[in-house]
Amino acid sequence: MEVFSKAGDLVLPEGLRAGGYREGRDGVALVEFRGKACGVFTTNKIKAAPVKLTKKILRRGIIEGIIANSGNANAFTGKRGLEDARKMAEIYARLGGLDPSHTAVASTGVIGRYLDMELIERLASRAFDQMDDTVNGFEKAGRAIMTTDTFPKLVSVLEGDLVITGVAKGAGMISPSMATMLAFLFTNARFKPAEMRSLLRKSTDKSFNMVNVDGDTSTNDMVILSASGEIDVPERKFQKMLDMACIELARMMAKDGEGSTKFIEVEVTGAASFNDARRVAKAVTSSNLVKTAIFGGDPNWGRIVAAVGYSKAKVSEEKITLKMEVGGKEYVLVDRGITGNENVYDDLRTTLKKSEDVRIIIDLGMGGRSAVSWGCDLTPEYVRLNAEYTT
Amino acid sequence: MEVFSKAGDLVLPEGLRAGGYREGRDGVALVEFRGKACGVFTTNKIKAAPVKLTKKILRRGIIEGIIANSGNANAFTGKRGLEDARKMAEIYARLGGLDPSHTAVASTGVIGRYLDMELIERLASRAFDQMDDTVNGFEKAGRAIMTTDTFPKLVSVLEGDLVITGVAKGAGMISPSMATMLAFLFTNARFKPAEMRSLLRKSTDKSFNMVNVDGDTSTNDMVILSASGEIDVPERKFQKMLDMACIELARMMAKDGEGSTKFIEVEVTGAASFNDARRVAKAVTSSNLVKTAIFGGDPNWGRIVAAVGYSKAKVSEEKITLKMEVGGKEYVLVDRGITGNENVYDDLRTTLKKSEDVRIIIDLGMGGRSAVSWGCDLTPEYVRLNAEYTT
Repeated sequence: MEVFSKAGDLVLPEGLRAGGYREGRDGVALVEFRGKACGVFTTNKIKAAPVKLTKKILRRGIIEGIIANSGNANAFTGKRGLEDARKMAEIYARLGGLDPSHTAVASTGVIGRYLDMELIERLASRAFDQMDDTVNGFEKAGRAIMTTDTFPKLVSVLEGDLVITGVAKGAGMISPSMATMLAFLFTNARFKPAEMRSLLRKSTDKSFNMVNVDGDTSTNDMVILSASGEIDVPERKFQKMLDMACIELARMMAKDGEGSTKFIEVEVTGAASFNDARRVAKAVTSSNLVKTAIFGGDPNWGRIVAAVGYSKAKVSEEKITLKMEVGGKEYVLVDRGITGNENVYDDLRTTLKKSEDVRIIIDLGMGGRSAVSWGCDLTPEYVRLNAEYTT
Repeated sequence: MEVFSKAGDLVLPEGLRAGGYREGRDGVALVEFRGKACGVFTTNKIKAAPVKLTKKILRRGIIEGIIANSGNANAFTGKRGLEDARKMAEIYARLGGLDPSHTAVASTGVIGRYLDMELIERLASRAFDQMDDTVNGFEKAGRAIMTTDTFPKLVSVLEGDLVITGVAKGAGMISPSMATMLAFLFTNARFKPAEMRSLLRKSTDKSFNMVNVDGDTSTNDMVILSASGEIDVPERKFQKMLDMACIELARMMAKDGEGSTKFIEVEVTGAASFNDARRVAKAVTSSNLVKTAIFGGDPNWGRIVAAVGYSKAKVSEEKITLKMEVGGKEYVLVDRGITGNENVYDDLRTTLKKSEDVRIIIDLGMGGRSAVSWGCDLTPEYVRLNAEYTT
């Protein structure tokens, strides 16, 4: 299995055409790909109009294309919002000769404002003119759905002729309790929508649901998987490839978390249950205090232990082992409840300050289950970005 | 009922003597007060040594005094930590002629470091020399337990001869799911410990449990209520006074949230249940995105709606009414699901930028229950404070 995340290395499944166009904060991405499709959506009870519409469209199990816009989430916009989402599908369907009832719609941006449909129409028409079947067009689509993202998130997972290629956006309102963000995945594999949905749910739980930037669960999150059905593949093999594609996109989202300077990976082992492992891993990547300590290069590991304690997982102080891996070195901070050598703190501080990647390994000593979560540090830049977003 | 929170206006119940002393980041506070006592403690599964010890001490239902230190939480310190907590009780008991098994211990500060017992002994002895039965001594105790707090949190609630006087500290690791922080309350009322505990729990749920600074639940939180038993009082009346004392301290904690520039009060009405009202109120004060928007004076109310949606409460988009009260003006942002006049955003932005108090009123339109939560904005200063705390 090969995994590529640089635009130049991507491989598109046959039949995929894409393009994108943006003006300032607003962008429209178009992807044409005819396949059996399924989706995973936000658990937020306030669901954006495109979420409601696309859920309905995916009930038929087929899509021909996706239109997505950034800048306005079309959320909390009532009936008018739903009509606007439908109009978006129609705009792309008309341009591309698709069936609007097979055209998925996604949005990301400010909540509570009506879409400017003239703007959407203009951007869609420009994006359509730029569509092609090359990686270049796909990357443009990735760029068009960026909000505070600093780079487009793209991935290809290959094995023989089998391809899964995906695009996603982060970077704020990213929270642990669900599929958070937009991600679109395309494959030439053959599956029935019901099978695909179960595979996608499993991959989502291990990837997007384990990312945390700021603990806020969006109204617009959506993951779509579409399969053109050219190639037969065993479920297990496909699940592994899909896991890899989703995890790679999830890691990129964490790396590009708003205002972040450091990427944090938390691995929890020795949990009594999968749920416990996930709870602990997510509690640590979600903790503002852990995130600020990492930003400051402060080896304040007591905050990690506090997060372990309030995670609601079964834990016992004297069984916890805590390590940090930074800059190629491993620091043992707690060994089965006993504080390690305090003399390493100065070295750890120095290494932390200059490293962009931090790995935290927590062994709970309660059982055999494990989980991994991804996040980023909390910085003054995050605050600045989010203090000024709508203005 | 009268409520005072300025040091000069406080009234101490008969028999209360207090003092405090600090050296840089480390402080020790002593309070002597003989009473029937009860406590509410952190729900974090990693409990600090003083929490374990004081829980045990309070099982006997009587305390003669409290010793509390700031700078070191004495948490995740195993058996040695528990011995150190016991030594703290003994140090004060010896100085003050108390029974160490009736001496409560509390700590706040860095997690995972052993106490410097020589330092504690020296600070305790200095604090003891400063003890008196005046408001001055009580304020010194309040100052000695401050960590990143910028002012001591003190309150007196009076009705006739009945007094409840309390002291608390904030200001970080303040999270919504429990009694978060240290607070000590003293009264001349007469109650049995079991009755008192039920009253204290109720007040705590309405006050400290509704404050959020950063969503992190501490290992050291502790609220103690001690009653000298001079005055008989009906339960209901006392509950109201205790509510008031706890709410006043909780509001002060929110106002003094680490690095904050604005105080946020969220009132939720029309909820289907008390639990729903609490969930929504806490989700909004806990949202990093709401907190950063308020910091920036950005009327990005869509983030409030998103938090309402992920709060797990029963909500319906078209029934929500959302208002903000800032600078003496009321802004209707959503009226039963319909977005209000967008022209008010510029005025709201201007008013938000110069106001220190923001009130958010959310009517869910689902029933008759309500709740109030308190929080503060998230600022670059919060990040700075917490990026550098242990160093």
